[in-house]
Amino acid sequence: MIRIAALQMHPARLDTGTNLDRIESAARSAAQAGATLLVTPELGVNSYGGGRKILDLAEPSDGPIVNRLAKIARQTGVATVASFAEKADDTVYNSAVYTDGTSTPSVYRKSHLYGEYERGLFSPAHPSTCLFTHRGMRVGMLICYDVEFPENVRRLAVAGAEMVLVPTATPKGSSGTFIAEKMIPVRAFENQIFIAYANNTGRDSNFVYAGQSVIVAPDGALLASAGSEEEILIADIDPVLYTRSQSANPYLSDL
Amino acid sequence: MIRIAALQMHPARLDTGTNLDRIESAARSAAQAGATLLVTPELGVNSYGGGRKILDLAEPSDGPIVNRLAKIARQTGVATVASFAEKADDTVYNSAVYTDGTSTPSVYRKSHLYGEYERGLFSPAHPSTCLFTHRGMRVGMLICYDVEFPENVRRLAVAGAEMVLVPTATPKGSSGTFIAEKMIPVRAFENQIFIAYANNTGRDSNFVYAGQSVIVAPDGALLASAGSEEEILIADIDPVLYTRSQSANPYLSDL
Repeated sequence: MIRIAALQMHPARLDTGTNLDRIESAARSAAQAGATLLVTPELGVNSYGGGRKILDLAEPSDGPIVNRLAKIARQTGVATVASFAEKADDTVYNSAVYTDGTSTPSVYRKSHLYGEYERGLFSPAHPSTCLFTHRGMRVGMLICYDVEFPENVRRLAVAGAEMVLVPTATPKGSSGTFIAEKMIPVRAFENQIFIAYANNTGRDSNFVYAGQSVIVAPDGALLASAGSEEEILIADIDPVLYTRSQSANPYLSDL
Repeated sequence: MIRIAALQMHPARLDTGTNLDRIESAARSAAQAGATLLVTPELGVNSYGGGRKILDLAEPSDGPIVNRLAKIARQTGVATVASFAEKADDTVYNSAVYTDGTSTPSVYRKSHLYGEYERGLFSPAHPSTCLFTHRGMRVGMLICYDVEFPENVRRLAVAGAEMVLVPTATPKGSSGTFIAEKMIPVRAFENQIFIAYANNTGRDSNFVYAGQSVIVAPDGALLASAGSEEEILIADIDPVLYTRSQSANPYLSDL
């Protein structure tokens, strides 16, 4: 059994230092609550709505941002999944990184960019299967719009993921509510996996975010859910509790 | 715009004549309500829970059952999607047939059989893309467990389906409620299509059924939903009303 945390956050605009401080503070809270893994929102390090200046903050995955995340993990005992603008040669990706402070960070690059705003900033990555092992559990990452495509979650589940962590920036409105309350539980149920969906909240000059972060179980049940305020969700992840559900809904073996 | 109907039904055990009478009666009610298409539950012609004797009732798709359905369509003006044990050479499939009384019936054979009961009775078909045109609208069929796999619905949507009709026999319980209330709306939303999900209800010697039939729109909204009684649901299907949703959630073009 592992305990995880999800940070629902209103990032400071284009202020990487402040946002990393906020992630460090959340990691300390998560540690106090007994969690060993913290997932944070899409582009939470840079601010999702920061516009073209996000590109000036882009860094490689062995740069100061990821080094700071590694230090946070070593100091708190909490590994993080954080999302930032990743520079690779002349390309900038919308990426998420898992950092536990000791092993090589795992980097996932968003494949399905949503709308003109994201497509104007980032390059889409080819859909990839990025899995890491956290305390014996196989874990995958997707970012926001990626998880709305069943193909992306299925690919990870077929590859062995027991849990998928999703930094997101889902806007406030009926679609955002639908995705948090129905689609994320269905993605978990149809693959019999855990999903933690950590959203931005509040508003910036470009967007209003839904909040409504959730952590869901393989039977589709909500283990934790947030409203519209900043919040740290905590949930216990124990695959053994869902053996009955996996036996009743054997989608992966029946596919 | 077309108006459709979904029959939630408790079939008579192994009594094809009585069940076809019930479908005819529902087609007359649907006609009075202005509908031109009626979808009915999984194996509603033979009774889902009838056990091995269902195999004795199996017929080819040009046999008396489908001829009777064609006659019902001609007499009422309502095309039906009905599900029956289909005999093809030495193989028996769990099938659904669309019959409008004039054109050649379209037959869909279930690809994903659920559990020992179904696997003991039927042969699984290779997943197929069976589309027909009803009053200008492109329509596909799936049966029960098939629709729980996102791959099956996606295949139809990518092939051009605007609506998918699903005879089902979903059992009563938390999974059945989850599927009706969350998974079916998500299948519609993630493909931006209409879905009509017509379930068995009541109990027989083998199963207790959920009822909870639904008709859902491309934005995931419930257009009609049933409780646990026998009932005929009616809904208006107008793709033009969902242009905004399709533009905001362009999953098929962004895939």
